[in-house]
Order: sequence, then structure tokens, then C-alpha cells
Amino acid sequence: MGIRKGKYDAWIFAIGNEVVQGRVVNTNAAYLGRKLTMLGYDVVSVISVPDDPELMSYFLKLAIESKPAFIITTGGLGPTYDDRTSEVLASVLGVKWVINEEALRMVKEKYAEGGMELTPGRVKMAKMPEGAKPIPNPVGTAPGIMYEVDGTLIVALPGVPKEMVEMFEKYVEPELRRRGPRRYLLEASFTVKGVPESSAAVAISKVMKRYVNIYIKSHPKGHEVKAPLLEMYVMVSSDDEVKGKELLNKVVKELKEELMKLGAQIS
Amino acid sequence: MGIRKGKYDAWIFAIGNEVVQGRVVNTNAAYLGRKLTMLGYDVVSVISVPDDPELMSYFLKLAIESKPAFIITTGGLGPTYDDRTSEVLASVLGVKWVINEEALRMVKEKYAEGGMELTPGRVKMAKMPEGAKPIPNPVGTAPGIMYEVDGTLIVALPGVPKEMVEMFEKYVEPELRRRGPRRYLLEASFTVKGVPESSAAVAISKVMKRYVNIYIKSHPKGHEVKAPLLEMYVMVSSDDEVKGKELLNKVVKELKEELMKLGAQIS
Repeated sequence: MGIRKGKYDAWIFAIGNEVVQGRVVNTNAAYLGRKLTMLGYDVVSVISVPDDPELMSYFLKLAIESKPAFIITTGGLGPTYDDRTSEVLASVLGVKWVINEEALRMVKEKYAEGGMELTPGRVKMAKMPEGAKPIPNPVGTAPGIMYEVDGTLIVALPGVPKEMVEMFEKYVEPELRRRGPRRYLLEASFTVKGVPESSAAVAISKVMKRYVNIYIKSHPKGHEVKAPLLEMYVMVSSDDEVKGKELLNKVVKELKEELMKLGAQIS
Repeated sequence: MGIRKGKYDAWIFAIGNEVVQGRVVNTNAAYLGRKLTMLGYDVVSVISVPDDPELMSYFLKLAIESKPAFIITTGGLGPTYDDRTSEVLASVLGVKWVINEEALRMVKEKYAEGGMELTPGRVKMAKMPEGAKPIPNPVGTAPGIMYEVDGTLIVALPGVPKEMVEMFEKYVEPELRRRGPRRYLLEASFTVKGVPESSAAVAISKVMKRYVNIYIKSHPKGHEVKAPLLEMYVMVSSDDEVKGKELLNKVVKELKEELMKLGAQIS
């Protein structure tokens, strides 16, 4: 059952009323979509559901039955009653929902640092599907969850973007790189003078939309209005090193052209 | 088959590789999620899929089989080969995919204004599931699609946010208001001096996250840096007029408090 496209299918979930009701924009999904694409995974769907265990189960079941290489969820791992991701995952996987000793130690440590006791809500953050591996949370308190079933790696991370990004890059990305297809990642950077970051953003987005496996980011180094200075970082992902280099050169050239149209000096 | 929660379930779709691969952030979904929630609909899921007819069919079928009150898709209505939403909809609905004469007239007119001929790609934008009603596009060229089946209203709009918003507000929202639950929409506005819009955004987002059926928007009237002046607009949606008024007063009060913390003068 389910739908499967290839060996490296990935499903992205966002869990939370605030997402489906549009009180926040789902930037987590855009971040993960780009990351997974660069790692050579095929994102077959991005699904947001409310904090409703029945809806969460329904869609998570669809994903798991499709046996993709990777499923990631963001949100619903916190201490409050409506944070149900971990519990629902256990039920969908057909395993017990139990206190994970390693996770409990992580949570305990976090609160001990602040001189705080463990409350039932806080202990709840250490409950996971039996057999799961907790993922440390260097930014917040709720650990993430890693679980493997039938060749599918399932990861649940908090919805707070800062926590999610840190945990993904530190603990999930290396694991995906190890399991995923062989990819060549090629980088370049250059300096841009005289264009504020807010204007450069337009040029970046223009070029980013033209290609699939590229990533461009600007790092401001000067003063946005008085003396704008940016370091521009370009990354290209390819299954072929030579083609990757060609694409990188092309992207850098086009990006420089767009920036020069805005009056940039490039070095 | 499928999953259904209530009488006014709504499913939101975004179609396009650029969405699942994170080359754009899906702001359309946040906009529609908020709009539908304010109209009294329950958004049961937001699903993004690539420009892949098989994946599109799979998820659209799930939605249609669940017999929700409303399904809306954005994206995939343009003239290029990878714009497949209309064709896939016809196939999922089990009806022919035909030239809609009214839609053809709309498309023809658009290109005639610019002195341009109809090419096959342009004619394609007038092809719709047999029995569909085209939705005029006042901003771009591709008409939208409105189709009703078994009590489910299905609407397909372009993915360009400006086009989508204009078409939704002009042609879709009135129809949903007519079909949806009885809602009271209550509004208030006030003027805020001395806080730039970028700072006010933090206060707005703080208060917005506290409640479900509210909407807050700031309109800049002065100069962002030199003399910041904003008009703040608050809307509340409720199934009860008295409770709605109470909520509106509460939200306005909390918003003013948050803004005053930032040093705002309010009148």
C-alpha cells in the first residue's frame, strides 16, 4: 500500500494547529525541502496537520506504509497536553510509548541547570516509542526522536526553527549523508559591495528558482544601509563531480550578473 | 474511505517542485489557512506535492474520497508542460479534460490586449475538467477552476501569490461565505506612533499566536525609520456576536499592551 517513487523518497510533516491555520508560515518545511534535495533525496510530499491524533495517525500511516527512505516531522514534542507527536508515533508504529532513560537524563540535566524540578509535563518529553533513539536538543529542552522501521528512518524534531535546524544539522544530516546517494557538494563564495542584503535577496531568489540542486546564502558583513557588504555563499549538489563544477560556475556567473544589475561591485 | 472530521473540513494543496524542494516558502498555504479558519472552516491538512501527476492524483484522490466541504489547490495552471493540475483533476474526477469555451474567451482576451496570438500552451490554460466553471484572473492569464462533486467544492488557483489572493478574495471567498457556517466578523483599528513596522511585527505575531480566529495587520502610513506611523487593523471571527465582541476587545487590549512595551504612542 501507499505510494513510492524511488529509493530515496522523503516525506516532510509539520504538526500544529498554528501551521494549518496560518498563524505561522511553515519555513521549517522550506528549509528541510532544500536540505533533503541537496542530499539527493526526493521530497514526495510536505504535509501539515493540526494537533489532532486521528489526523496525525492517518497521514503518518500513509507515509510509513509507503516505505520511503526518510520521514521527518517537526512540532508537537513539547510538554503541553496538545503535544502528541511522540505518543501518536508509538501508536502508529504499534509499539509501547515508554520513558526513554537516555532522553530522561537529557531532560533532567536541562532543568537541573536552571535549578528546576521534573514535572509530569517535563517527564513526558522523555517518553518515546519503545526502541527509539533520543536526539539531543542543544538549544531547547525537548529531545528529538529517531526510529527505524523496515528501512525507513523516522525522525521527529521540535517545531521551533532554531532548535530544529541545530538538531537537524548536528545529528540528522550526517546520518542521511551516510545512508543517502553519493553526492558531490561544491562550494564557492565571493564578496559583494554596495548592495543591501534586502536587495540582494531578490537576485538570490531569482537565481535559486532556476535550478534544483543549488543553495545560495548571503552573510552581511558591513552596515545594511550605510556601507552594505555581503559575503555570498553558493553551494551545488550533484551526483557527478564534473557536472557539479559546471553548474557551480554557471550559478556564480548568473548570480554576479543579477547583482551587478543592482549596482554591486564584486570581488 | 478517507478521513473526515466535521461538516466544514477543508484541504489545502500546493503543487510544484519549487515548493517541496524549498525554493519558495509556501506563504499561499498560510494565507489560505488563516482565511479558511476565519470563515469557520476546519483545515484538516495542508499538502504540497511536486509536479508529478502520479503523486498529485494519489493525494487529490485521498482528499476527494474524504468528502470535505472544500478543497483548494494552488499552482500548476500555467502554460508549460509541467503544469498538470487541471489535467490531473479531470482524471481523478473521472471526467473529460476539454476546452472550456468561457475560459478560452478569457485567455483570448488577455492575449489580444497585448496583441498576442493563441499558442497551444495558451489554449491549454483554457482546458478544464468537463463541467467546470472558470474563475477570472484579473492579475495574470491562467483562469482558475471551480468544480463541484458530491457536496465538495473544488477550486484550483494559480500559484503566483498576487493572482491567487486576488482571485480568492473576489470569487472564492464570497462563495465560501455563502456555503460555510454563520460567522460574525468584527473589526477594529487604531493608530500607532513611534514603532517601526518591523518591530510591531513581533508584537503582532505574539498576540496572533494566542488565539485561533483572529487576524491582525499593520498598514504603514509614515516613514519606517524617521517617523514610524502605523494603522493597526484587527479582525475577529466568531459564531456568537457577543463572544466575538469580547474577544475583539481582549485582542485589541493585549496588542496595545505589547506595542506600548515597545514605546508606542497609541491613539
